[in-house]
Amino acid sequence: MIKRYAQKEISEIWNDTNKLNLWLKTELAVIEAMENLGKVPKGTYEKISEILNKEPIDLNWWLKEEKKIRHDLNAFVHERLRFLPNGLQIYFHSKITSFDTEESAFARMLKESLEIVEKYYLELEASLGKSALKYRYTVMYGKTHGQGAELQSFGKRCLTWLRDLRVDIDILEKVEEGLKYSKISGAIGDYGSIDPSVEKESLRILGFEPFYGATQIMPREIYAPIAQALTQIMLTLDKIATAIRLGARSGQSIYQEGFGRTQEGSSTMPHKKNPISPEQTEGMARMARGYNDMIMSNIKTWEERTIEQSCVERIAWPDLFHTVIHSLKTMIRVIENLSVYPDNMLLEIIESRGCYASSEAKEVLKKLGVSYGLTSEEAWKIIQLASFNVFEPTEEAKRIRETLPKSFAETDELFLKAQETPKPDSISIQEIIPKGELRISSQLDTKEENIQKWNKILQKIFFNPKNLDRWKQIFLPSYLLKNEETLYRAILDV
Amino acid sequence: MIKRYAQKEISEIWNDTNKLNLWLKTELAVIEAMENLGKVPKGTYEKISEILNKEPIDLNWWLKEEKKIRHDLNAFVHERLRFLPNGLQIYFHSKITSFDTEESAFARMLKESLEIVEKYYLELEASLGKSALKYRYTVMYGKTHGQGAELQSFGKRCLTWLRDLRVDIDILEKVEEGLKYSKISGAIGDYGSIDPSVEKESLRILGFEPFYGATQIMPREIYAPIAQALTQIMLTLDKIATAIRLGARSGQSIYQEGFGRTQEGSSTMPHKKNPISPEQTEGMARMARGYNDMIMSNIKTWEERTIEQSCVERIAWPDLFHTVIHSLKTMIRVIENLSVYPDNMLLEIIESRGCYASSEAKEVLKKLGVSYGLTSEEAWKIIQLASFNVFEPTEEAKRIRETLPKSFAETDELFLKAQETPKPDSISIQEIIPKGELRISSQLDTKEENIQKWNKILQKIFFNPKNLDRWKQIFLPSYLLKNEETLYRAILDV
Amino acid sequence: MIKRYAQKEISEIWNDTNKLNLWLKTELAVIEAMENLGKVPKGTYEKISEILNKEPIDLNWWLKEEKKIRHDLNAFVHERLRFLPNGLQIYFHSKITSFDTEESAFARMLKESLEIVEKYYLELEASLGKSALKYRYTVMYGKTHGQGAELQSFGKRCLTWLRDLRVDIDILEKVEEGLKYSKISGAIGDYGSIDPSVEKESLRILGFEPFYGATQIMPREIYAPIAQALTQIMLTLDKIATAIRLGARSGQSIYQEGFGRTQEGSSTMPHKKNPISPEQTEGMARMARGYNDMIMSNIKTWEERTIEQSCVERIAWPDLFHTVIHSLKTMIRVIENLSVYPDNMLLEIIESRGCYASSEAKEVLKKLGVSYGLTSEEAWKIIQLASFNVFEPTEEAKRIRETLPKSFAETDELFLKAQETPKPDSISIQEIIPKGELRISSQLDTKEENIQKWNKILQKIFFNPKNLDRWKQIFLPSYLLKNEETLYRAILDV
Amino acid sequence: MIKRYAQKEISEIWNDTNKLNLWLKTELAVIEAMENLGKVPKGTYEKISEILNKEPIDLNWWLKEEKKIRHDLNAFVHERLRFLPNGLQIYFHSKITSFDTEESAFARMLKESLEIVEKYYLELEASLGKSALKYRYTVMYGKTHGQGAELQSFGKRCLTWLRDLRVDIDILEKVEEGLKYSKISGAIGDYGSIDPSVEKESLRILGFEPFYGATQIMPREIYAPIAQALTQIMLTLDKIATAIRLGARSGQSIYQEGFGRTQEGSSTMPHKKNPISPEQTEGMARMARGYNDMIMSNIKTWEERTIEQSCVERIAWPDLFHTVIHSLKTMIRVIENLSVYPDNMLLEIIESRGCYASSEAKEVLKKLGVSYGLTSEEAWKIIQLASFNVFEPTEEAKRIRETLPKSFAETDELFLKAQETPKPDSISIQEIIPKGELRISSQLDTKEENIQKWNKILQKIFFNPKNLDRWKQIFLPSYLLKNEETLYRAILDV
Repeated sequence: MIKRYAQKEISEIWNDTNKLNLWLKTELAVIEAMENLGKVPKGTYEKISEILNKEPIDLNWWLKEEKKIRHDLNAFVHERLRFLPNGLQIYFHSKITSFDTEESAFARMLKESLEIVEKYYLELEASLGKSALKYRYTVMYGKTHGQGAELQSFGKRCLTWLRDLRVDIDILEKVEEGLKYSKISGAIGDYGSIDPSVEKESLRILGFEPFYGATQIMPREIYAPIAQALTQIMLTLDKIATAIRLGARSGQSIYQEGFGRTQEGSSTMPHKKNPISPEQTEGMARMARGYNDMIMSNIKTWEERTIEQSCVERIAWPDLFHTVIHSLKTMIRVIENLSVYPDNMLLEIIESRGCYASSEAKEVLKKLGVSYGLTSEEAWKIIQLASFNVFEPTEEAKRIRETLPKSFAETDELFLKAQETPKPDSISIQEIIPKGELRISSQLDTKEENIQKWNKILQKIFFNPKNLDRWKQIFLPSYLLKNEETLYRAILDV
Repeated sequence: MIKRYAQKEISEIWNDTNKLNLWLKTELAVIEAMENLGKVPKGTYEKISEILNKEPIDLNWWLKEEKKIRHDLNAFVHERLRFLPNGLQIYFHSKITSFDTEESAFARMLKESLEIVEKYYLELEASLGKSALKYRYTVMYGKTHGQGAELQSFGKRCLTWLRDLRVDIDILEKVEEGLKYSKISGAIGDYGSIDPSVEKESLRILGFEPFYGATQIMPREIYAPIAQALTQIMLTLDKIATAIRLGARSGQSIYQEGFGRTQEGSSTMPHKKNPISPEQTEGMARMARGYNDMIMSNIKTWEERTIEQSCVERIAWPDLFHTVIHSLKTMIRVIENLSVYPDNMLLEIIESRGCYASSEAKEVLKKLGVSYGLTSEEAWKIIQLASFNVFEPTEEAKRIRETLPKSFAETDELFLKAQETPKPDSISIQEIIPKGELRISSQLDTKEENIQKWNKILQKIFFNPKNLDRWKQIFLPSYLLKNEETLYRAILDV
Repeated sequence: MIKRYAQKEISEIWNDTNKLNLWLKTELAVIEAMENLGKVPKGTYEKISEILNKEPIDLNWWLKEEKKIRHDLNAFVHERLRFLPNGLQIYFHSKITSFDTEESAFARMLKESLEIVEKYYLELEASLGKSALKYRYTVMYGKTHGQGAELQSFGKRCLTWLRDLRVDIDILEKVEEGLKYSKISGAIGDYGSIDPSVEKESLRILGFEPFYGATQIMPREIYAPIAQALTQIMLTLDKIATAIRLGARSGQSIYQEGFGRTQEGSSTMPHKKNPISPEQTEGMARMARGYNDMIMSNIKTWEERTIEQSCVERIAWPDLFHTVIHSLKTMIRVIENLSVYPDNMLLEIIESRGCYASSEAKEVLKKLGVSYGLTSEEAWKIIQLASFNVFEPTEEAKRIRETLPKSFAETDELFLKAQETPKPDSISIQEIIPKGELRISSQLDTKEENIQKWNKILQKIFFNPKNLDRWKQIFLPSYLLKNEETLYRAILDV
Repeated sequence: MIKRYAQKEISEIWNDTNKLNLWLKTELAVIEAMENLGKVPKGTYEKISEILNKEPIDLNWWLKEEKKIRHDLNAFVHERLRFLPNGLQIYFHSKITSFDTEESAFARMLKESLEIVEKYYLELEASLGKSALKYRYTVMYGKTHGQGAELQSFGKRCLTWLRDLRVDIDILEKVEEGLKYSKISGAIGDYGSIDPSVEKESLRILGFEPFYGATQIMPREIYAPIAQALTQIMLTLDKIATAIRLGARSGQSIYQEGFGRTQEGSSTMPHKKNPISPEQTEGMARMARGYNDMIMSNIKTWEERTIEQSCVERIAWPDLFHTVIHSLKTMIRVIENLSVYPDNMLLEIIESRGCYASSEAKEVLKKLGVSYGLTSEEAWKIIQLASFNVFEPTEEAKRIRETLPKSFAETDELFLKAQETPKPDSISIQEIIPKGELRISSQLDTKEENIQKWNKILQKIFFNPKNLDRWKQIFLPSYLLKNEETLYRAILDV
């Protein structure tokens, strides 16, 4: 990973020094196990571990030797054997194959990296939980298809983000269980030279259980779902980031990525405050998908193993972790510093002209309408018509839409005029429906006679003040959001 | 492809009847070629083709035979041999291998499918060109990072869409050239039984040239870039679709997918007009990427060929074409029926409070400021500050942001109050800069002393009426869009 | 999926009839729940369900209506409402949104499909277990890097295949748990109209629990890992298929796909017996990866939901299942009918000239050599040298390698001569090492003086008959495979 | 890319120093262009370029500034402005946006990297061409489905590898043409501040032409097919690598990766010579596909541009190039040092017992048989039966296959006995067919009466010595490979 995005915590796990030290750990554990099982003389482990732990591994020597013999693990064995007297040499890397040494080291690197993921996940979860509580009563306009749908609190949106991530982390934890297994079962996994008891004891020392049924290596089926689960986290982060970008769109932003006091948004347009962090998150998710694809490919190998997976794992795993940690940190920062504009959230609702309650309005109308002979479908169509009525363009707007400028002179003229034109008063379905003021819509093919019939029925229905009260009530946030407490209880246990 | 999305034109190309008829075409071409080259008796071709063209291929017989011998091409040969007398049988499927028969048939199916792609591409290009001309002077607020950037015409946006697609189609046309080659060179491609002259002549009859260097089959390197180019088209369509969805977001939509007069947007929310077609286009693009991935995998094969690619090609190619054609047609419909709202485009510009011209404003200031000792960086910072000043929240907004409701009762209260609050008058950088009315911004750490200095300089600069005129000019669409004609000339040749 | 690969069991789950019937199930469950909770009059459920269960859903009516209103769920509601009197209509699809109806239906389709996967998985597991037991003592040459490595039984290879699949199925079962959740929580998931208790009760009736934190739909994070787990199965099948193809390579095949008594391998080469089923499995795995990629894309959506995922799910899920079931059935057939050649397995071992025991040979030598001053590295190098010695090409072979034919006449001559040349006697490391008959190798840079020294030591070591006995023992299958019982116990519990 | 796989040539292109120097080049070109067009005072370019070319860019200063303002290009502008007097500052990065500066720099980095690809491609092409000529008359057994198919020269196999790569490079060259375009057209690509003539002149100086129709950036549709073409190269290399691995399988390898004189193949099995380089090539191809996937994702962006593509391009492009160059170099080394065993190639053919000519044998029989009443299908079936006859297992082999060992003791016994059993004499279809010695096969359901009839016909046919001569001829390499010259002429022009 290039320096710009590399995460120190990850680099420290995946560098050669750490890897070779973990290899040494396996080698020593095998000797310790052999001694525990009476297969090598008492004291062998102590002697060897004392010598080898004292002598730091010489990376340069190792690299040079590898170039000569073209085998990294053997080069490591040679490096270590330099320090052992002949009588002890026969106990070092004895009866085992390269991947007996490497496999548990690799699993440990995964585990350690996953702990870091978990750590930042928890931080992010906490941030989202905090925001969910903070904005529990901050009402906003929920959106489906990018269109205003129904009301919710911004807190509830944070809850769904948190919940999505929790799905990912649950899956990660489930598939991570595979990491409790490893193997020290010889060149093709059937204990040709090594005894199964040695595997068991060595792995116990290293904190693993034997995986019975390995070949030369652990099946990559164990690791692939971890990459997938990490990638899911990235896709969820991208989803959250996208929701942030959408809310931050200029016009009447409902929130924005925090902007540094010395930040510059564009080299040419000084007014810009761009949501670059959430955008970058999408880029990172694109990368994660690529790394995941590489790792999934590694399941395939020939017979008792071929080595295609090796170079891929050296790169795709750490780079995937860099990507995930980078994006988790970014998202924590974005959430913690999000500039939230409840005032604009309110404006957006108001500007929907009552449509934010169309769903409930339709339900009320269905119910109230039955005794007046309104069918369910008619109730639905009345609300649709009203919604279209309140957004019927003004005459001026219609003119503009129909008579497009034919030159820049005309464009300028139009533009200057528009600057002078005040915004028209807006009406709401909350008002026109009880009054029975439905009109023909240019966009629907409702018949005039139906409209007249409906208007009459509506007037009758809402002549009853109880019905009108019921009607008004459904346009209140408190009414529409009343059930969110179920979510808070279930998700945050509050 | 399921019926819902299947395209008749594509199904007709990729069904078994058409495929087997194309196989027959190859077989007959080989016999014709042999005769032309004097390798079979005169009249053989006429006799065989007359018999076989008369007898339609019996698909059921073929399928039954295939089940028995587990070889589709051999089953086809058996089906055909039924109608030939023994003396003619030896000339049918003689000296060639299955893929000698199938390869050019496959290429022809690709070619025919690509012609349909081309046809709809041209239709879409025409639609986009028409829109580009129609909206040549319809000004809108261009967006980068989802934030208002600079002005452009909506016509120009259509031009870039058209141009992106043209890039894709150019690439498609380039990589399609590979389809002029095919092979009839025997079981491993070295003419073990067949003579190279027969290949050449047969392919000539079929409209191809020999590809020298095939194995049993053509290298899939020839076909893969075609799938990639088709997938690019899908990604471009997704990009266009996304721009449409973004502009269609509720609030002050600048355009919307046309909505049918009898359409229903939601089962529960009658007011909804969702951009479902552009959203579906993204789904289709996701599919295309999957099919492309399958097809790219097919490059790999063992030695002179193994058969993994076969099932993939039976599915991924036609399904990819269904996807592309479906999406092209969808986009043509969307573009042709797009509801465009130039009035809202104007409002969006106006509501940017002059920031739409920040780039040019900075250039003017840099130039005018030099003689007053303003550095380039200061000019940049003045525009930034002004942009932030004009969007400084009102006291009321600040209060709302700082004091979040603590109960739904408070939420209701806030909501009802907000409905009564009139929108404040807005100011523009166009006004405050010449007047030297910069103020401290809560979001930037500009120092008070600098602001004072700058305000003084600004007042001096714009005391000069010539400078003020220059300043005003840059806020006009005609000024800012003047160079778009270059694009119209280059892309539409108008 | 095209007919050739479609699986009846899957088609029956994913067709429209089944889907709409499942939608109806949800609708009825909601009404039943409302009644149970006292929210609709007693008897409502019985009346409605009686009417609607009696009237089969009219697919054609539905499709026509959908075309008109462009909303499939609403069209379904209209179709059903036709049969309900007005008084009952208000209870049907009341307060819920399309995906409240569809989501649990979708989950049920997944569940049913997964049961079929599980069924065939169990069949395949049984076949592999049976083979593992049958070939428990059938020795073969294990391979890493496509090169002979150590001995194993063929039964053990079957065990590792079984074990890999078990990893996949374990993961599948873990991630499948997500399917116990579903949602009926309204248009944006915060129970705007519907009461949480209704969701809970409806889902209970349908066999689900509420997922708290959904938006309009369940987060696709729940489903994506299922596709991944299915794809892993495909990749494991591809791995097994590849091992079968590798063993089936002509020359001295160790096993082959069963070949039908009426099968034909090639249209032009009558001698062919091609492993077409395992090859097809790789093709199917390529497809699965594509479908998985599509499904993973679906995690991303805008805010409370956009509809990109819809078309993808209609195609990718059933097609993925078709692919998996097809390949599981294929593999069951291949394993059940595999022609296994233990005679050729033995030949392959014998022809390795003792190298099959090189690992154990090195261990023995390391141990025996210590008292003669041999280092561990020298023991390693002695075995390497011996292995290269026994494969030193004959003089004739060297000549052929060095003097390549310069014309086809020379090629013919060489070819005819080679047919007459008897294969040379072969020697084995088992023999030359105890005799101290190491020689210079043309491929290693071992020094003559070392070789002489080593030969002397070897002769000394093996002068001791006890050492020679030990040496001979390690070349016996019974010795080398002795620990496989651990695997049989752990995996098959025998 | 980690050091182990990083390619110096690529690192030098993609490091920050080079990138920033290329940015500077663009900035200076714009000033030069302005001067050429009379838009800035004469001498401005010379003054600025003299100052800035003298002062090397301070990477640390730049990084620090970037951290502060969170904008890399602006930080670069600030870094440079430090050295310019105020009067010159206004000409630097004037009227253009970040990506006006970066876009052509990026294209240049791609171009330079592609030149390196081209260089190594040419080297590899030369190696393959050399091998093709060297082994023009070295006969081997071509394989389809991993099964012996027909004869070819090893030279011809090299030719197909070369040809596949040439397809890739042709595509690369075609799609690379897009790199001749770039853009300097302002923040949203419509020349808001900058004049189109300045773009044209600046790009001319930099070696590009304007792309009319860009947004803030070039459409990524231009670059994506380059990544795809590079990935195709990797897939072709993987295909070649796989063919090498398959031929190198132990037993009777026909070629092997050259093995170093000091190389070690395994830490535990000293006899191993593993094809690790070709295996690694597959790993690298897996990576390339991941990078390609990332890059393809970049086509999508919002409206006039969002910044997701930025981080992806910083990583995926250089890493893809590292991968490609690494693998090209690896393949050159593998091909140049391939150990080829023509002796084993001959043995493999001989051991096919005449089946290598089954295709031509069937053709001859079809023709000769007509006058004896043999149908085409019968000729095919005779050759199939003969091929199965010559591979009928010995009685001993049948016994081994039927009576599997039930204990390791039995296994040992079988093993020791097999070592003593001499290989049986083999017969060939070349012999048994003319003699009419077809027999019942245990694997086919040919009827005894047919076999008797066929044997009689065969004896009659080959009683004629002319027919027998014709028959013998088709088993000669010179006969079967005669047409390969067409390929040499077409591909190598020899």
